[in-house]
Amino acid sequence: MSVSPGIVHGVGLGPGAQDLLSVRADRLVRGARHIAYFRKAGRPGQARRIVEGMLRDDVVEIAMEYPVTTEIPLSDPRYNACLSAFYADCTARLAALAQAGQDVVVLCEGDPFFYGSFMHLHSRLSGVVPVAVVPGITGMAGAWTASGAPITWGDDVLTVLMATMDEDDLTRRIRDTDALVVMKIGRNLPKLRRAIAAAGREPDAWLVEHAAMPNQRVTRLVDADSVTPYFSILLIHGQGRRP
Amino acid sequence: MSVSPGIVHGVGLGPGAQDLLSVRADRLVRGARHIAYFRKAGRPGQARRIVEGMLRDDVVEIAMEYPVTTEIPLSDPRYNACLSAFYADCTARLAALAQAGQDVVVLCEGDPFFYGSFMHLHSRLSGVVPVAVVPGITGMAGAWTASGAPITWGDDVLTVLMATMDEDDLTRRIRDTDALVVMKIGRNLPKLRRAIAAAGREPDAWLVEHAAMPNQRVTRLVDADSVTPYFSILLIHGQGRRP
Repeated sequence: MSVSPGIVHGVGLGPGAQDLLSVRADRLVRGARHIAYFRKAGRPGQARRIVEGMLRDDVVEIAMEYPVTTEIPLSDPRYNACLSAFYADCTARLAALAQAGQDVVVLCEGDPFFYGSFMHLHSRLSGVVPVAVVPGITGMAGAWTASGAPITWGDDVLTVLMATMDEDDLTRRIRDTDALVVMKIGRNLPKLRRAIAAAGREPDAWLVEHAAMPNQRVTRLVDADSVTPYFSILLIHGQGRRP
Repeated sequence: MSVSPGIVHGVGLGPGAQDLLSVRADRLVRGARHIAYFRKAGRPGQARRIVEGMLRDDVVEIAMEYPVTTEIPLSDPRYNACLSAFYADCTARLAALAQAGQDVVVLCEGDPFFYGSFMHLHSRLSGVVPVAVVPGITGMAGAWTASGAPITWGDDVLTVLMATMDEDDLTRRIRDTDALVVMKIGRNLPKLRRAIAAAGREPDAWLVEHAAMPNQRVTRLVDADSVTPYFSILLIHGQGRRP
């Protein structure tokens, strides 16, 4: 006997506030019998925290815990091999559920196709079981809304960078853009600060922590502490044409 | 007698589907006594179209119609003066309502602080009456979701450009990024095509029309027609690190 397969939904949750889920995402999350999410071992996980109180009583939760890779440098092939095995394992669990006819909602912070982890499942699940993606409000949109000012005007160029990049490349690109978003900051903050200063843009830079959440905090980079959460976002607002 | 002022809400509607409004935006739009939106004279307007069927029976609609500027070149100071007077007039209308104690919901396609027109009201209303902004799913997120593939992986650099830019600058920037989003295409499509080709990236470029709407269409740039709606979005997907 064959069952028709379930759908794996990659659902964008937005920047952190429950009422910033889309109506479609809200409906999927509240209705889900199976939800899956990534988290670090021993941590509740930010995606799971966003939906606290929204889930069905009989929900089945699938916590996908990242392997501990802190001992392995990013450039070591074993790092990729370790993560690749992890994503293959997650894929197998979700595909088995879908093949048994069950829908699964995978919780994704922000937007599923904008950086993030879901895409590593998406590429492996595509063609195996039905996959659907619900876009979400990005963390960066949460950040610029928190800052109280538009990120781009008129014909501004916007550049989105990861603070994990090489310092010289950061500097060059920061110098060459109107508006800027930098993510994955965390321990890269000192390097990012130097790059922003070298590009002559320190007075215009803002650091947003926990955007759209109760502990939201917006600070001028020059006044920021020397450590910041990994999910902080740095902004430089464009100053383009404005009649 | 003084009344406490109402709030002008700039509400992001997302890319076009009603169930991609956030829960917060949905609640504000359905509850609004006064809604305002921009449109071209004689056109229904895309923002208004998105919320069709969602409004209260007794809603008061404030259509803010752009002045006709097609006769005036963008570089002519009269262009800016004309738009500036228009935004000042809109501001006066909304501020008067708020000062009379009425909340107003301003409908914004995509996200209110990411390009778009609401920011021209926001800057004029701030400090005059209370203003609140609800972020939204951007049109570009609607576009990459429609394309069925992630826009950025790992440490990819994302550049967002307007097709109104100078051709040489477009080419240089397209050559220098991993992932690309281009907006405001319309009549600039031939120029954009040349810039993409000069940067050697024609095979990777996709054109998305009417993302998240029933007439959504995703085409390889090489197969695209020579005309496309102004709100089309061009994408080149990043190909960064993926374990």
